[in-house]
Formats: sequence, structure tokens, C-alpha cells
Amino acid sequence: MNRYLITGFSGFVARHFAEYLESTKDSFLLKGVDVQTPCFMFDHYKNVKIDFEQVDLLSKEQVKSIIKEFQPTAILHLASFSSVALSWKEPVRSFRNNTNIFLNLIDAVRKLNMDVRILSVGSSEEYGNVNDNDLPLTEDRRLNPVSPYAVARVSQEYLSQIYIGGYGMDIVMTRSFNHIGPMQRDVFVVSSLARQLVELKRSGKKRGAIVAGDVSIIRDFTDVRDVVRAYHSLLQRGRRGEVYNVCSGRGISLKELIDIMASQLGVEVDITVDDRLIRPADNRKIIGSNEKIKRELGWSNVIPLEKSLKDIIDYWDEN
Amino acid sequence: MNRYLITGFSGFVARHFAEYLESTKDSFLLKGVDVQTPCFMFDHYKNVKIDFEQVDLLSKEQVKSIIKEFQPTAILHLASFSSVALSWKEPVRSFRNNTNIFLNLIDAVRKLNMDVRILSVGSSEEYGNVNDNDLPLTEDRRLNPVSPYAVARVSQEYLSQIYIGGYGMDIVMTRSFNHIGPMQRDVFVVSSLARQLVELKRSGKKRGAIVAGDVSIIRDFTDVRDVVRAYHSLLQRGRRGEVYNVCSGRGISLKELIDIMASQLGVEVDITVDDRLIRPADNRKIIGSNEKIKRELGWSNVIPLEKSLKDIIDYWDEN
Repeated sequence: MNRYLITGFSGFVARHFAEYLESTKDSFLLKGVDVQTPCFMFDHYKNVKIDFEQVDLLSKEQVKSIIKEFQPTAILHLASFSSVALSWKEPVRSFRNNTNIFLNLIDAVRKLNMDVRILSVGSSEEYGNVNDNDLPLTEDRRLNPVSPYAVARVSQEYLSQIYIGGYGMDIVMTRSFNHIGPMQRDVFVVSSLARQLVELKRSGKKRGAIVAGDVSIIRDFTDVRDVVRAYHSLLQRGRRGEVYNVCSGRGISLKELIDIMASQLGVEVDITVDDRLIRPADNRKIIGSNEKIKRELGWSNVIPLEKSLKDIIDYWDEN
Repeated sequence: MNRYLITGFSGFVARHFAEYLESTKDSFLLKGVDVQTPCFMFDHYKNVKIDFEQVDLLSKEQVKSIIKEFQPTAILHLASFSSVALSWKEPVRSFRNNTNIFLNLIDAVRKLNMDVRILSVGSSEEYGNVNDNDLPLTEDRRLNPVSPYAVARVSQEYLSQIYIGGYGMDIVMTRSFNHIGPMQRDVFVVSSLARQLVELKRSGKKRGAIVAGDVSIIRDFTDVRDVVRAYHSLLQRGRRGEVYNVCSGRGISLKELIDIMASQLGVEVDITVDDRLIRPADNRKIIGSNEKIKRELGWSNVIPLEKSLKDIIDYWDEN
């Protein structure tokens, strides 16, 4: 029986991960932990059994006792204080709730001397400021974190390498680029834009304004359902000690995303720029290379951007 | 009036720093903080007034209230869980007592919106595994931390850069190589060797054994009294946002150090190798470049190695 411990279980990635496991028809026992209780039900699964427990990963004792009791065969570490913008407002909280929680987790596994694969989810933010010559970003590029969040993620990756090399632990790492999909909270940009567009549509107007930051920036978006397939492959077949970009390899501007969604909804949009949504040290353009994960695991993203955006719109339309 | 806050005040570097300030004939008000009370007296100073307070830097509230009350003009951050060997045994404790304490400190300054220069003391360990072609190590070399302690120090440096670039804070950073001198605890290698040699001499024997790890490794040693002069220069004139190696630029093996000390004491020595003192991933040879600090600040190390070793021997002879 596969026994997966999933941290950050109340987030939308965990939910899609559980959906994906259910679809594989294999049997899974999931232990989900999070500081917040999930706002979704998980009693409709047939192959996946889920047990949730509210846990603060900053509590070393709690973390250790859960791992000891559950005896996971794999750990998917999704828990994160993942907002770059908020990390500037609360740098200490961001650092503790990224780096220190991860350290507590891997140290508990070390102390329990367990042989368990851990997937350490990191971020494209670790690359920091890049110029167009560096694109698409490959995993061997020098890291240059430029936000508190990014520093926390780089520290997490360095700690992983120490626990792998020094204690022989079985950790695989990602640098995950932007992911999008239904059920993502609207503190994230695409979800926020989709929600505003749905509200515009519902207002009955043909044309209206939405609020955004700099919509000319180009990012690499992957559907969360492709992302969770990548995570599962990495848990099963990723090479120990290796870092993998999880991305589409394709860049698109926020403006283009807005245009696609507006067209799908049949509305016309004026963009009101809110300076507070513009991050000071932001990159103009970020595109990752997914050659390594393609080559080694045969993974690639298969959900077209248009479908992702349509599903996000439908999600907001229903909620 | 110069008002210096010094963390890690009970360590031997702080003590030498206070001695140095006294020697400058300027007036200083020092606030020393440490989790442990210092085992030295500071009532013999004329120009330096010292106030000590027992503080755990992991307590954000304590850190903030001390800075707010004392209103330092400069902060010398010496506090550290500085043993590489112990960091392997207690990685979480090492990380928290290096990175998290530093983060609490700089975040308190940020929240208080104070204009104060901070010297962030880092370590040559940040460079990690190096090969001879990289020597002497210059500050622009890619960091490759290979111990929990080294990761903690690299994280500290990254956080410094974020607080400088993102919040406009005034931080200067060091990567300090091995320093030696009287009053250093014998958990550090040169101090331990000196103490054993003094004990051998006192036993009345002409020849005897001392216990050591791999004595063929080559390190870059600087007298702590040169180091504290560098720290003071960096607090006064270092460039904001810059990292400086603090080192001698010269490599010497532990075997050679032992020979010099044995000769000074007039004893002959057999070395008993204790495998527990050999670190797994250790570099054979580490030498730093001090060109940057020489060029920019005119600092250089002036105390000959022979004098450092003699003074260490005299210290153990008296204690």
C-alpha cells in the first residue's frame, strides 16, 4: 500500500494531487497535514483513503510523532508561505514557514532513521533576476534569490542537499514555475484576473475594467493537473539528489492571458493598473526549460493553456 | 558617542573587540548580549563602558526591545553556533542559532526603521568544497555549502542581501576564515592542540603524544586581534552590501602549527590520530584572498603566526 504524507494539504495543489491519485486506480492511503483545515470534502474517493490532521509544522514534536505513527512511504512537501509579495511584508514569517518547517520535516525523518522518499517543492523564484540570454532557465543556472520568499526556497534546497549528502536521505527537489488551475485562491494573479472577468460578465456589461499590476510581464504557466502528475513521477522515479524544473517551457504575457479569457467570456476589458500590484525587483520575462524532466521521466505538460483558462473561468462561475 | 551593540558577547572575539576599542582611546558605549554570561570581567576599561544583558536572540521581542532601548549606532553580530562538527549532530539547532537569530536581529532593526550599520559575520565554510585551482578564494566565487553550518551562513548572507536591496538597510558582510588567539575555547583545533602541548610540557616529559584529526590539512589562520581590527574597519568604512574575506592569504598545515608550538615549548610530539576528529567532506586546503579588504580598507594582518601561537601557549600556561 502506498502511504503518502502530504503537507500543505489544504491548498489547491494537494487537492489536485489527490484527484490525480484517485484517477490512477491504484490504492493510496493519504495523511494530509496543514495548519488550516481543508475547505473541500474527500469522501467521494474510491481508491484514495484520506486522513487529515491539523498540524503546525513549526512544532518539531508534532511533526515527528505524525511521521512516526503514519510511517509514510513517500512525503510530498507542499506546505509553504508562497506569496512573494507577502514575504516582503512579513519576511520572518515567510522564512520560518518555508525553510524552518521543511527543516523540521526532514530532521524528523533523519532522527527516525526512515527510508522514505521526500519531494521538496521549490520555486522558479530561486533563479532571481535573469536576463533574456539566460532563457529558458536550466537547472544548472546560478541561483540569485531576490525576495525573502526566494531566499527561503534556496535555503530549503541547500538544506536538502546537506541531508542527502551528509545523512544519506532520499530527497528529490523541484523548482516549480507558476501553476494555474481551478480552485486556486484569488491571491494568485491568474485566478484573480479570471474572477474579475467572470464578475464583469455576470454584471451584464459588454465592457468593463479589471485591476491588475504590470500585465506586460511574461511568465511560464503550467496547469496544476500537469504539475501534480510531474510530482507523482518525481516521487516514483526522480533521481535522488536532483533538482527538476517543473514548467511548460513556454512564456506568455498576462495581457495575452487576459485577452484569451475575455474572448472566452465574450467581454471587452480595460485594464486599470494598480501600482501596489507591481513588484519592485520583478523580472520582465521568466521561462523555464523542462528538458531535464522530459528527458529523464518522460513527463510533459499536455493540458492546453486555453483549457486551463476555461476551467478556471468555469470554477469561478460556479463558486 | 559610539554605541555598539555586540551579539555573542561572551565569546573570545567580542572580548578582543572590546580590548581593541579600549586601545583606540575613543569613547565607546557597548551593549553586550549573549545567551551565556561572559566569564571575563570588564571593569578595567577606561574608554569603553560595557553593559551586558543575557538574551536569547531567538526571542524576537527581547531583541527588538533591546535595540529600541539601546539605540545602537552600529551592531556587530558575532553570535553563532559556529562548530561545523556539532552542526552535523544538531543541524536544526545550528540553523536556528545562526540564521534565525540573525533574521530576528535584522528584522527588529527593519521594524524600528533605524539607520544603523550592521556587520554580518560569515564564514569561509560558505565556499564549501574547493579545488586547488580556486585558491586563493575570492569573494566572487560561487558558494557551495557542504555542512549544515555552512548552509546556515549562506542563508544569512542571502538574507542580508535581501534586507539591503529590498529594505535599504546598511549591512556589510564578512566571510571570516579560521581565527586563533588567546582565550579561544579548546573546542577549536589550534586552542586544543596548544592546550595539550602545554600539558605535555608541564608533565615534565620531553616527548609525548597529543590527539588530533588529520593534521595534513591546510588552513588560513588569522590572529583574532587582527580580525577585530578588520571588523572595526568594516563597521566604519566597509561598503554597504559588500562581502569581504577576512583572512591572512596564507595557508599552513596543522602539522606545521604543531611543530612551531612544540619547538616554542621545547617538547617533542607524537601525533595520535583520532578518526572522530576527521570530518568526512573536509577540504584538504583552504586559503582565502584578502586583496579586497586590503585594497578598499587598507587592512592587513600584522601579527606574525609565531606570536599568535606563543600567546596562545602563554594563555593556556596561565589558565
